[in-house]
Amino acid sequence: MTDFPTDKIVAVLGGTGPQGRGLVRRFAAAGIPVVIGSRSAERAAEAATELGEATGGTVSGTDNATAADQGDVVVVAVPWDGHADLLRELAGPLTGKVVVDCVNPLGFDKQGAYALAVEEGSAAQQAAALLPESTVVGAFHNVSAVLLDDPEVTSVDTDVLVLGDVREATDLVQALASTIPGVRGIFGGRLRNCHQVEALTANLISINRRHLAHSGIRVTDV
Amino acid sequence: MTDFPTDKIVAVLGGTGPQGRGLVRRFAAAGIPVVIGSRSAERAAEAATELGEATGGTVSGTDNATAADQGDVVVVAVPWDGHADLLRELAGPLTGKVVVDCVNPLGFDKQGAYALAVEEGSAAQQAAALLPESTVVGAFHNVSAVLLDDPEVTSVDTDVLVLGDVREATDLVQALASTIPGVRGIFGGRLRNCHQVEALTANLISINRRHLAHSGIRVTDV
Repeated sequence: MTDFPTDKIVAVLGGTGPQGRGLVRRFAAAGIPVVIGSRSAERAAEAATELGEATGGTVSGTDNATAADQGDVVVVAVPWDGHADLLRELAGPLTGKVVVDCVNPLGFDKQGAYALAVEEGSAAQQAAALLPESTVVGAFHNVSAVLLDDPEVTSVDTDVLVLGDVREATDLVQALASTIPGVRGIFGGRLRNCHQVEALTANLISINRRHLAHSGIRVTDV
Repeated sequence: MTDFPTDKIVAVLGGTGPQGRGLVRRFAAAGIPVVIGSRSAERAAEAATELGEATGGTVSGTDNATAADQGDVVVVAVPWDGHADLLRELAGPLTGKVVVDCVNPLGFDKQGAYALAVEEGSAAQQAAALLPESTVVGAFHNVSAVLLDDPEVTSVDTDVLVLGDVREATDLVQALASTIPGVRGIFGGRLRNCHQVEALTANLISINRRHLAHSGIRVTDV
């Protein structure tokens, strides 16, 4: 696998949320220029200052639309609730780009987390339906936001399953995932098999409750 | 976790298929008395003789209904196609028992494997709907049949996610899984979160194609 090209700008939409922040921290620490997108450009700018100082990396912050425009690769780490609306709005700036969806459509009740039914099959397939001019890849679903955003964690003990239908794009996102110390980006299948990877996060939440852990998964024999 | 009690008889329905055979081999090698069930009692008896000799364990073979009757714990490892019909027939003998469903409802086409939609949500939930007087647990979905059935493989490098709503039953099946050298049986959540664990087998098949591997998964931080 080739290295991720560090002249590519990675934008993280929802980059002030837990998963987004964690990814920004790790990408910036790897020397990748990062743009944080958020509903609030002000909060994005604050997070950018903080994470830039913490990592010594190049991080800026702005609203989601501007971030989508600036990124060469655009990571979508927004809550499931606003997923469809945001992508519909941003179809223009996302044209021709690799869009990395890491959204897990989950519900929560007294018995814990569970997978929500998604009309298109999965969040990633919804993204692909809304962004026909982009190349959608699913990734970063099962990696703990807590571990990602903890600077004391020098190696994140998990693999990242990367799903998509275009080899060049999945290779690129595998390389992006592999910039995180400890992580291997592993091809996990076509986009039609993304639902179960998103939904598996509900199982990891159950495991975390039982064990008071920040669980992840490793793929064996590869 | 306590050990699996080796006075309990484990029946494996579909025990002459690849996954069933592999599980029979490992359970017998662990000193658990095993009954192989099959549509053909004759093929079950042949497999029982072979696997009994290979493992030095106690293995018998019979038809699925008799095996369901004889087992204290009954593992369902039949093809998805015959899953509902078989369980409907065997609701009587399975009453009061722990039924371990390891069936993956998958389809295959030129692009590989994909998850089938199941009306009840998952094979395990279908089993629970058809067997209201049994305690259904989901397990053994993601473990390679090839590795299980290979006597040269002295340690199977994978965890088994065990899903269910009754703690006593999931504890028992975790102990059963952990009799396989190398395997940890790990609680993976409630039955309503079983679909994605079944479906994840499609992703592992994609990984196996890409890497010519027999992949499995490990849960990290537990």
